[in-house]
Amino acid sequence: MEQLNYFSADYQITADSKIEAETIARNICIEQSVEMPPETVPVHIRSSIAAIESIEFISEKRWRARIRFPKILVGSEPTQFLNVLYGNSSLQPGIKLLDTEGAYLNELLPGPSFGIPGVRKLLDIQGRALSCTALKPIGLTPGELAERAYKFSSGGIDIIKDDHGLANQSSADFRSRVISCVRAVRKGEQKSGKRTLYFPNITTSPSQTIKRYEEAVSLGADGVLVSPQLTGPETLCELSAIGSVPVMAHPAFSGSFLIHDAQGIAAPFYLGKLWRAFGADCVIYPNTRGRFTFGIDLCKEINRQCRAEMGDIHPSFPTPGGGINRESVSVWLNEYGKDTILLVGGSLYQHPDGLERAAQEFQHTLESHGQ
Amino acid sequence: MEQLNYFSADYQITADSKIEAETIARNICIEQSVEMPPETVPVHIRSSIAAIESIEFISEKRWRARIRFPKILVGSEPTQFLNVLYGNSSLQPGIKLLDTEGAYLNELLPGPSFGIPGVRKLLDIQGRALSCTALKPIGLTPGELAERAYKFSSGGIDIIKDDHGLANQSSADFRSRVISCVRAVRKGEQKSGKRTLYFPNITTSPSQTIKRYEEAVSLGADGVLVSPQLTGPETLCELSAIGSVPVMAHPAFSGSFLIHDAQGIAAPFYLGKLWRAFGADCVIYPNTRGRFTFGIDLCKEINRQCRAEMGDIHPSFPTPGGGINRESVSVWLNEYGKDTILLVGGSLYQHPDGLERAAQEFQHTLESHGQ
Repeated sequence: MEQLNYFSADYQITADSKIEAETIARNICIEQSVEMPPETVPVHIRSSIAAIESIEFISEKRWRARIRFPKILVGSEPTQFLNVLYGNSSLQPGIKLLDTEGAYLNELLPGPSFGIPGVRKLLDIQGRALSCTALKPIGLTPGELAERAYKFSSGGIDIIKDDHGLANQSSADFRSRVISCVRAVRKGEQKSGKRTLYFPNITTSPSQTIKRYEEAVSLGADGVLVSPQLTGPETLCELSAIGSVPVMAHPAFSGSFLIHDAQGIAAPFYLGKLWRAFGADCVIYPNTRGRFTFGIDLCKEINRQCRAEMGDIHPSFPTPGGGINRESVSVWLNEYGKDTILLVGGSLYQHPDGLERAAQEFQHTLESHGQ
Repeated sequence: MEQLNYFSADYQITADSKIEAETIARNICIEQSVEMPPETVPVHIRSSIAAIESIEFISEKRWRARIRFPKILVGSEPTQFLNVLYGNSSLQPGIKLLDTEGAYLNELLPGPSFGIPGVRKLLDIQGRALSCTALKPIGLTPGELAERAYKFSSGGIDIIKDDHGLANQSSADFRSRVISCVRAVRKGEQKSGKRTLYFPNITTSPSQTIKRYEEAVSLGADGVLVSPQLTGPETLCELSAIGSVPVMAHPAFSGSFLIHDAQGIAAPFYLGKLWRAFGADCVIYPNTRGRFTFGIDLCKEINRQCRAEMGDIHPSFPTPGGGINRESVSVWLNEYGKDTILLVGGSLYQHPDGLERAAQEFQHTLESHGQ
């Protein structure tokens, strides 16, 4: 049963030859474990050193190295897990983290506390995709934002999230904003006759984000928005452990990890598998064909990773945003399927007949698609 | 005095023409402020939108855009400052954050609580560079690590930091490790007749890192090591605000921001200026000519940014690590000057006569250089 003491991770290595790829892979084994010349590691703990399991050719100059890490390197801390996976190796060009063993994620990480089934249950909606919009812009007062939230809610939208730039600015401090918007959304629900969930943005300093989560919950928010790359990714685990409301993760500040072929972390793995395993109930990602540059296949792979079987870890709702407008909702429903949250921002604000009407049409498209 | 309501940030934009660069810069202005089509922004708050100040040619396909941000976008939160600087823009290729106005950093951020003068005072050392080594590897018991700490301290080394991979593993849990190593270092000081500072690694979940800092201080640690990209960068501000002991920042997991020409954040700005302004007393960076790929000019620019005048913000100790061995200490002293901490790890462990002797020789080189 020796095998159980290890987990494996896959890296894409850019190298001119297999021999060079092997050298780089051996360096990853050292760099990401003992970080010292192997001959200086005391003999009785040399089993702490990571080892190459396999190296396979992917395509020209690209190799896939599977590396076996002793679990003792991580202990039980998710932050240290990230450090073992990609701490110093992030600083060395041509090394991209592709994947890790699902079973270990299942062992180490909590997963989302709600996930797709839990969020559906809060809304009492099965069999169709969900709608989401963003409350913005920065600069409006709590009352002005609440007025917008009321209109969206009156129009029946499923989820209203804060713009990820709404923090605690003087124009709309966190507490006043949440109080006003929760009230507005509850009022809008009476008009629409259905549930609308409001997710304020709680992203702030690493130690205060949890306090803001608790404040949001105590003020009646139905979920929260957080940018894990700003707060520290393990925030997701900490929020999932509380588990009062769903957590929607936003990719702000994470792009440097995600948009290079030879470097960083494969986006479907990082957003779809890892953020999910860390505890995100919904994962926002930059959709294709908008103002970001993910391709359609990569977006579909994020969706797949969010939803794939992973032991007892719930699936997360993939939440494509950017590049979805009122006219293309049907297209994206066909592309991505029902277990998706479609995030439409700017386009709803452009509707000539206002936000309530925009929300009604958005809902109508989703509902007719689900039947 | 309208000017005072804004701060500026510089971006390198990769584009085929100045017109294309302007389009991208305009998109940054929107993306990083109101994040919606400008015509949908209510007229009374259009002053929330960021604006282009200038666009200059740098070199082929490279442009430098200076963008003016209203301070109201940030409020008073450093995490939101990072979000405004590079939240969504990180997800768009060809946009690299180069710099921000020093005066605004000075206004918003605390800077280090000790800085170069404070760390020198703790050690009572002026006029020479400082030595630092890393306690490792993972897998040793607290007693075994403490034995190494004792030898380094007996040899008179200035600072002993934990390897950034020492977290809270079962082989050496945080508390036992700190207790054992603090005791060992104090004992070694009696032999060497001089101060040695011990900086345990406190990097863990975002909300617990501060508790681990407080525990380290209560157990007699002289400073701490933290990896801000894992804990969330604002952790530095929170630790500086407590200010009991110096904070050494480690670049683990930050490489994806730092090693691309067209993308991410300029390393001298991010590590040297921003982490300093956030509160790092010492900034570890991957030295040139080692196993990392920073060039010598870039390393010198990190040093310069760590030390440059910045209002009432203390200078930070640049701490190059990787690629410095026993034989090259003099070379680096000549290159980098006295306001530097030289971090030498593996090479000391390779000394044929052991760690105490290795530390003595390291100190001897530093001291003779300082005279």
